[in-house]
Amino acid sequence: MEGLTHFNKEGRATMVDVSDKAITTRTATACATVKLNENTYKLVREGKMKKGDVLAVAQVAGIMAAKKTPDIIPMCHPIALTKVDISYEMDDEKSTIYIESTTKCKGETGVEMEALTAASACALTIYDMCKAIQRDIEISDIHLLTKSGGKSGDYNYKGE
Amino acid sequence: MEGLTHFNKEGRATMVDVSDKAITTRTATACATVKLNENTYKLVREGKMKKGDVLAVAQVAGIMAAKKTPDIIPMCHPIALTKVDISYEMDDEKSTIYIESTTKCKGETGVEMEALTAASACALTIYDMCKAIQRDIEISDIHLLTKSGGKSGDYNYKGE
Amino acid sequence: MEGLTHFNKEGRATMVDVSDKAITTRTATACATVKLNENTYKLVREGKMKKGDVLAVAQVAGIMAAKKTPDIIPMCHPIALTKVDISYEMDDEKSTIYIESTTKCKGETGVEMEALTAASACALTIYDMCKAIQRDIEISDIHLLTKSGGKSGDYNYKGE
Amino acid sequence: MEGLTHFNKEGRATMVDVSDKAITTRTATACATVKLNENTYKLVREGKMKKGDVLAVAQVAGIMAAKKTPDIIPMCHPIALTKVDISYEMDDEKSTIYIESTTKCKGETGVEMEALTAASACALTIYDMCKAIQRDIEISDIHLLTKSGGKSGDYNYKGE
Amino acid sequence: MEGLTHFNKEGRATMVDVSDKAITTRTATACATVKLNENTYKLVREGKMKKGDVLAVAQVAGIMAAKKTPDIIPMCHPIALTKVDISYEMDDEKSTIYIESTTKCKGETGVEMEALTAASACALTIYDMCKAIQRDIEISDIHLLTKSGGKSGDYNYKGE
Amino acid sequence: MEGLTHFNKEGRATMVDVSDKAITTRTATACATVKLNENTYKLVREGKMKKGDVLAVAQVAGIMAAKKTPDIIPMCHPIALTKVDISYEMDDEKSTIYIESTTKCKGETGVEMEALTAASACALTIYDMCKAIQRDIEISDIHLLTKSGGKSGDYNYKGE
Repeated sequence: MEGLTHFNKEGRATMVDVSDKAITTRTATACATVKLNENTYKLVREGKMKKGDVLAVAQVAGIMAAKKTPDIIPMCHPIALTKVDISYEMDDEKSTIYIESTTKCKGETGVEMEALTAASACALTIYDMCKAIQRDIEISDIHLLTKSGGKSGDYNYKGE
Repeated sequence: MEGLTHFNKEGRATMVDVSDKAITTRTATACATVKLNENTYKLVREGKMKKGDVLAVAQVAGIMAAKKTPDIIPMCHPIALTKVDISYEMDDEKSTIYIESTTKCKGETGVEMEALTAASACALTIYDMCKAIQRDIEISDIHLLTKSGGKSGDYNYKGE
Repeated sequence: MEGLTHFNKEGRATMVDVSDKAITTRTATACATVKLNENTYKLVREGKMKKGDVLAVAQVAGIMAAKKTPDIIPMCHPIALTKVDISYEMDDEKSTIYIESTTKCKGETGVEMEALTAASACALTIYDMCKAIQRDIEISDIHLLTKSGGKSGDYNYKGE
Repeated sequence: MEGLTHFNKEGRATMVDVSDKAITTRTATACATVKLNENTYKLVREGKMKKGDVLAVAQVAGIMAAKKTPDIIPMCHPIALTKVDISYEMDDEKSTIYIESTTKCKGETGVEMEALTAASACALTIYDMCKAIQRDIEISDIHLLTKSGGKSGDYNYKGE
Repeated sequence: MEGLTHFNKEGRATMVDVSDKAITTRTATACATVKLNENTYKLVREGKMKKGDVLAVAQVAGIMAAKKTPDIIPMCHPIALTKVDISYEMDDEKSTIYIESTTKCKGETGVEMEALTAASACALTIYDMCKAIQRDIEISDIHLLTKSGGKSGDYNYKGE
Repeated sequence: MEGLTHFNKEGRATMVDVSDKAITTRTATACATVKLNENTYKLVREGKMKKGDVLAVAQVAGIMAAKKTPDIIPMCHPIALTKVDISYEMDDEKSTIYIESTTKCKGETGVEMEALTAASACALTIYDMCKAIQRDIEISDIHLLTKSGGKSGDYNYKGE
């Protein structure tokens, strides 16, 4: 049973030393799900084509949040991201929006938290722009999908 | 069917005018859930008592993120928060941490997004500090629990 | 000849005391102009209707920058903006985009700098998203259009 | 006719992948112009020598803004700037201040936006510190002057 | 013996509820001291009059840092500062610079941390700009000088 | 007598060009001291073991502030820190807390300011969380302890 790595000898939080880790190209993909009711979903769906594009604003929010990750997550290292992208999948049956965010860098440490932060901020922005018409929106299933680069190797989510 | 409010006549995003809304005391409570495996959960649980307190770091992250909300969520108004608090409930059966965040202000607009952002950042920080030992952590059930103040009145979540 | 107000007795910069100024509703409108060549202009124009909406991204950038004004302009007071909006006018003849930004607050000091910062960031974002296809884009005519509220009263730009 | 590069296949904004671009030393110089009336110009001019140095404050604002570029311009990559400098040229005839900003880095992508953001923030700060005595100040002629490094090679502005 | 107030019932950090505190005008003055060697002190002293004004840059840094206080000090409330000023006293005998910062607001909570953060950032900036010529600079005597407003009343430092 | 390096030919502040400096591993250790009265010290000391851990919050504040250094100290270069750690030494005799912060990077310029900023923010946070029970807390002895890497070589503080 391996222990938590983000603590120093005194048991206090620390931004761990990554100076000696190899500089490799690292990517991560994360996801988040926003469940809307039929009415709200329809308005967002239509906006994508006509006026009031909620997803365009959420896209910008997610990308900017990825860059703010070390400012939001205390023990994250500052990282020079070389790519951030977000895409959506719309489930008309379930009135649900699936968000997928991808991040990339060449550095000593991974970009999972950047992808997760992008997906979360994107979801929260959809929430914000729809909250006047629906109050019980739910954000869920925020997790890592894939990850590559670094010593620990590749990873693919095997959840349900 | 009411329309989306965050767009101007041109159909572009706007930070809506709240100048004429009444200044009232507004509160909001939101939640988020972090599902860990047994091993990770145990380490976090123990840390709460001994060394390496993951939840203490996540607490600070959540509170600081609440203050950053207008910088993360594009159409949110800057708000002079008068209170931010976060509490945890630990479910030993399900190896799950329930986060509850409360925000308060006296102003023209609500503090839901601040509570939701606090809960999200808190959850992401737990993820970050445990990701070295578990890669399939999942954050879910981010939604509003209660809200009071303002013209639209009180709200209580009636989800499952 | 009135002197500069942003300096203390030692001649050093100061964030002037506005504690005793009346709290009134204050508004400001500012503008900026982005001159493109025909090709670039056409792509931005089309994007507005189809794919790749440069102006939607610039809109978000401008609104977020308005909120960052006290962090960008050193002697600006932190202000709880109650509204930020941006609109565009497209001049097909001159391949030129006119940006107009409006800001509002109820406070002790005006919101001109917030409107000007929004317009500038909006223009810079258009520049950024077009710079791969045109390098001699020019931003100009950044100035205040109107202003209301506060002791100094209303103002309307009388330039050319 | 080349297309806009900052959009993904879905037509949404993206922070483009620069992972495979060569790391070279990159520089950029940009400019901005601030037109004052005679009275204001004189006060700024004198301040440079005596008390109340507007340009010293604007210098700091411009340099700090260059570092904030990825936080202001949504699709800009975070860049480890290795140099930022700003210089002024005073035109006593035209009561005009010419701002020139230079940025430098060793990286995968250029520093034009950093130079343009520095010049803009510098100009806006001059505006802010003079707005109490003149309301029709105008900022104009914000554009790139030169650029070097990277695949696209050197560039020199050939405008009027 | 009164207890620490910044913790909730679970013993975790909290941004305390100030919603019910009276809105009064609040001021605070804090100080910091920078001890230089003779050579460094002379260069800073001269710069004040001629070229390379270290104190002008430190002034801007201190004022901007006051506005960043809730972003630097985790449990600080966001405050709409109505004034920030910094002044220096030069001790030629001791090659020492005394920094004094004053902050003001009308709100529910005091501005001590804002004054202390301003003085600290100002001192650190002097350090930064002199560190190439002296490595053993020391910053000390950072404390509150006076404070007024709020329930707890006025305070005057009675230290040595 | 060497001159100040952070100024350009015009005598104005500049973020100096470090493009040609060698990329080496650089470390810095800095310190700060917080003097409390017996009562306050005891509460902080106890909190370390039981409830209300002031030092845990200050730890997070210091680490996050290190990452914000280029945003707080105007002429500091943005640096990709590879490590930040903070440790405490408690002096029960003198009711004093000694803070020691360590920073590391692989880059063209040193990390002294990052270590000093971390120590300062950590000290200010202890102040903030104790100020309700003691008003004459004093922060002092902020200086560099050691530094390695770069052309100028190693340094060890030789003060009292």
